[in-house]
Amino acid sequence: MFANLSAGALGLPLDHPTAIDLAVRHDFGGVDPDPTYFAGLGSVQAVSEHAAAVRERGLSWGIAGLPVPLDGPAETFRAALVDLPATLELLRAAGVTALGTWVRPMHEELRYRENWRLHLSRLSVVAELLADAGLRLGLEYIGPKTFWSTERFPFIHSLREARELIAESGASNVGVILDSYHWYTAGESAEDLAGLTDADIVSVDINDARTDRSRDEQQDLDRRLPFDTGVIDLDGFTAAVREAGYTGPVKVEPFMPSLAKEPVDDVLADVSHRLARAISA
Amino acid sequence: MFANLSAGALGLPLDHPTAIDLAVRHDFGGVDPDPTYFAGLGSVQAVSEHAAAVRERGLSWGIAGLPVPLDGPAETFRAALVDLPATLELLRAAGVTALGTWVRPMHEELRYRENWRLHLSRLSVVAELLADAGLRLGLEYIGPKTFWSTERFPFIHSLREARELIAESGASNVGVILDSYHWYTAGESAEDLAGLTDADIVSVDINDARTDRSRDEQQDLDRRLPFDTGVIDLDGFTAAVREAGYTGPVKVEPFMPSLAKEPVDDVLADVSHRLARAISA
Amino acid sequence: MFANLSAGALGLPLDHPTAIDLAVRHDFGGVDPDPTYFAGLGSVQAVSEHAAAVRERGLSWGIAGLPVPLDGPAETFRAALVDLPATLELLRAAGVTALGTWVRPMHEELRYRENWRLHLSRLSVVAELLADAGLRLGLEYIGPKTFWSTERFPFIHSLREARELIAESGASNVGVILDSYHWYTAGESAEDLAGLTDADIVSVDINDARTDRSRDEQQDLDRRLPFDTGVIDLDGFTAAVREAGYTGPVKVEPFMPSLAKEPVDDVLADVSHRLARAISA
Amino acid sequence: MFANLSAGALGLPLDHPTAIDLAVRHDFGGVDPDPTYFAGLGSVQAVSEHAAAVRERGLSWGIAGLPVPLDGPAETFRAALVDLPATLELLRAAGVTALGTWVRPMHEELRYRENWRLHLSRLSVVAELLADAGLRLGLEYIGPKTFWSTERFPFIHSLREARELIAESGASNVGVILDSYHWYTAGESAEDLAGLTDADIVSVDINDARTDRSRDEQQDLDRRLPFDTGVIDLDGFTAAVREAGYTGPVKVEPFMPSLAKEPVDDVLADVSHRLARAISA
Repeated sequence: MFANLSAGALGLPLDHPTAIDLAVRHDFGGVDPDPTYFAGLGSVQAVSEHAAAVRERGLSWGIAGLPVPLDGPAETFRAALVDLPATLELLRAAGVTALGTWVRPMHEELRYRENWRLHLSRLSVVAELLADAGLRLGLEYIGPKTFWSTERFPFIHSLREARELIAESGASNVGVILDSYHWYTAGESAEDLAGLTDADIVSVDINDARTDRSRDEQQDLDRRLPFDTGVIDLDGFTAAVREAGYTGPVKVEPFMPSLAKEPVDDVLADVSHRLARAISA
Repeated sequence: MFANLSAGALGLPLDHPTAIDLAVRHDFGGVDPDPTYFAGLGSVQAVSEHAAAVRERGLSWGIAGLPVPLDGPAETFRAALVDLPATLELLRAAGVTALGTWVRPMHEELRYRENWRLHLSRLSVVAELLADAGLRLGLEYIGPKTFWSTERFPFIHSLREARELIAESGASNVGVILDSYHWYTAGESAEDLAGLTDADIVSVDINDARTDRSRDEQQDLDRRLPFDTGVIDLDGFTAAVREAGYTGPVKVEPFMPSLAKEPVDDVLADVSHRLARAISA
Repeated sequence: MFANLSAGALGLPLDHPTAIDLAVRHDFGGVDPDPTYFAGLGSVQAVSEHAAAVRERGLSWGIAGLPVPLDGPAETFRAALVDLPATLELLRAAGVTALGTWVRPMHEELRYRENWRLHLSRLSVVAELLADAGLRLGLEYIGPKTFWSTERFPFIHSLREARELIAESGASNVGVILDSYHWYTAGESAEDLAGLTDADIVSVDINDARTDRSRDEQQDLDRRLPFDTGVIDLDGFTAAVREAGYTGPVKVEPFMPSLAKEPVDDVLADVSHRLARAISA
Repeated sequence: MFANLSAGALGLPLDHPTAIDLAVRHDFGGVDPDPTYFAGLGSVQAVSEHAAAVRERGLSWGIAGLPVPLDGPAETFRAALVDLPATLELLRAAGVTALGTWVRPMHEELRYRENWRLHLSRLSVVAELLADAGLRLGLEYIGPKTFWSTERFPFIHSLREARELIAESGASNVGVILDSYHWYTAGESAEDLAGLTDADIVSVDINDARTDRSRDEQQDLDRRLPFDTGVIDLDGFTAAVREAGYTGPVKVEPFMPSLAKEPVDDVLADVSHRLARAISA
């Protein structure tokens, strides 16, 4: 696995070239791809050349966001499918290997099984289209009870459920996005990660939690930097990820608005250091 | 439909003969069967004679409790099945036509679909055994969020889910137990009851809710007598039940410990009056 | 219900204007819509005017074919969705109310449940897109064993399965296409049709079967005109359809190449007569 | 894995003590347990002593038959559950570790999903009861098309389906019984066995097929001894089983009535030799 600079996940408004420069400067092993930037390069050829230059600087790609919603109205889904091939072509040209999205853990109207069928429908179509393009898909489950309990019908909010959805889709190019924060808030342990292989994991996030809240009080959008509070057993988490033989990107996504107010080099030096600790632990 | 005296649901410690006497005195149309009392009569013949005497007094039977858990360990389920035929024989001898149970709306370990498969497993076996004995089964879903949100994995807590479970069981002798309290706390309306027929409803409970709590704050075990507070649209509820052509028992289950401290005739006169209002509304 | 002239189902190469003229001449109540012809009219306005003229001549529309495959590769499905809105717009402009497709009753690779999930995926997306356009969808199940047993994994080949697929899709604008030939070859009886309503049936086909073959030997593409052999209990079938309150189109689809060699007016007079008998029976 | 003498599978009417003697004489590594014989020993203690003596002679146990039907009426299932604990106690006392049963691959009435739910219901209860007793369960899928196509609704007839049923049961003590004959008639290859581990396989059967029938013409109850005709790729099959790290019993089940007419020592010497070849290949 390698430390990945995801400016978006850090809440830092960095443009793509700047993110690349900073990733190199602060010893990250990867950086998020930027499909909008790629599109702006004007040709598949230009995207390939840009990607080659990024690789030359020692960086791999993190994962791209999936531009297709797995829930919502069918017309929204349909319209997203119309545009999908062009985006996938750019990502392939850049050598990106995976996209990711998260699963909304509740619904006001759709019962669990109805929502399952909705997600399974969309997932199976999208997964096959990505497989045709040689791309993998990562699904992130969301753990905090303060989130999944806010609407009438809770949905997937544990690793086991996410893995069953993936298994039922029959897709071999879909895996999970593991975030220590969701793993902790879902009440999971290292044991729950046992048996995972590199093929099962598409991306990894490392975050810590606040000390002044119980597990069920933690908020999805108010986390801490890894190793900050020690609330989450990051050593157990990363050991399990290593045990799985995971080879992909590892990033930080703390939802701390304060980061955007600090000097960016200070933030990135700190984040890079924390990721290095997590990876080498 | 007819007003049914369920001493247990009222929290009144009445023995079976007393309950029958009081049901007659206060113009109830039915009374709960008591399998333990039946067993104590010593023979199927004696049970039939007792039941004939009860019918003679103008009373029908409410529903009996299902003596088989739909969740829990397989060995508990197995042991309950061993004893089931004897109980069913007594109920048949008495002319009882239906049993009922409720569905626990959450689980600490079992994910929704795992819990679904558990309940479906047990339900399909039990439903067929009851069908063999000419008996129906009612399933009650539980609405209060203060209940279903207390463990890690919420389960069935709406009419639509209960009906889908029943449909998937393939059993034609299973229906729902409708309780206005669950209907209200589940956020349901008369529209949700549309399309139900007498075959879909096995028993009906009429309760009201506290005024000082929002819908999502209501507690499962702290309700009010029907028409007491007006929080729940009982007119809409009973109109829909009538529209379904429902012919079975209607009872009150307020979980108000204070009732046991009042003169029993006062309580039953009041309850009977409220049920009569609901039925004739 | 009304007799519908479907030239395609009869194997007659009639262009759309000719089909309309012949439908009028032979007292049909409806005729198949022709999206290709509609598209050739050049504008939505022209389609509306054409449809008004057809209505003026006393004809309703049969159903259009669904231009989206419910199985096959995801890319084929995606491409069909790109083009779907334009077709739906034409159909709406013409006042067409329903589309239909059949379900392939076997697969060489996909196991039953895998194939179910595939069809459910596609169906739920398509049904919602059609619902947005105010259109219904009919699914036809295929009965002959000589067809469903020809590949490794048989799939839906009975009414009950088709109805469960529709129910699980959650779509209220999807119903079945009932064909007496599939009903007979599936070993179904009038009892299997009990409980259906007009909302459950999108289109009806009336055909008879050969006398020299047992039920399980009948071939999907070698049938007989209704009331020709009496092998199929068409009176029982149409009585059940009438009992359901069905109001839509009824057509004949005999797969008899010989029809194309006979004078078209003879064929249509005969077919019209047979449909009239079925409808009024 | 070890060669197991299953007199029943060979169609030989050997009593239990004789089977043990012959297993030793012909170098089998195991022999089928005989619950009826165990019961006849009169006490759990006597069963333990008998088992110790068998072990002393160098034999392990094959698997016992599951005395509970996974289909059929609920009352039959219930009655079998009443008696189950006594049988499981004898098997445990003997040190038997697994039971097995096969899945009927078709049904005249139950549609695939209905039948799936039936089997899943029964399987989940039985698997948990066996797990409580420290026992595993093996499920055998049946491959021949001449069998699964004989009723209206084909059911599980491939390894993938059997494994999905097991996975959905959530039971960790259930695996498959692999029979080269079913593997061949199901059109499966070594690739289909890839990824299996010892935990996934409960028992293995090695059989060959007739040369004068195509794959789809093979009859379930008319097979050949392993390596007899070479129709089935037994080397590929056993290599895949070995690759899985399988440690359990391997037996022959040819359904050849002729075997019972030959000298038993000749038959067993031959069978033992063939199993040794399969195991060591």
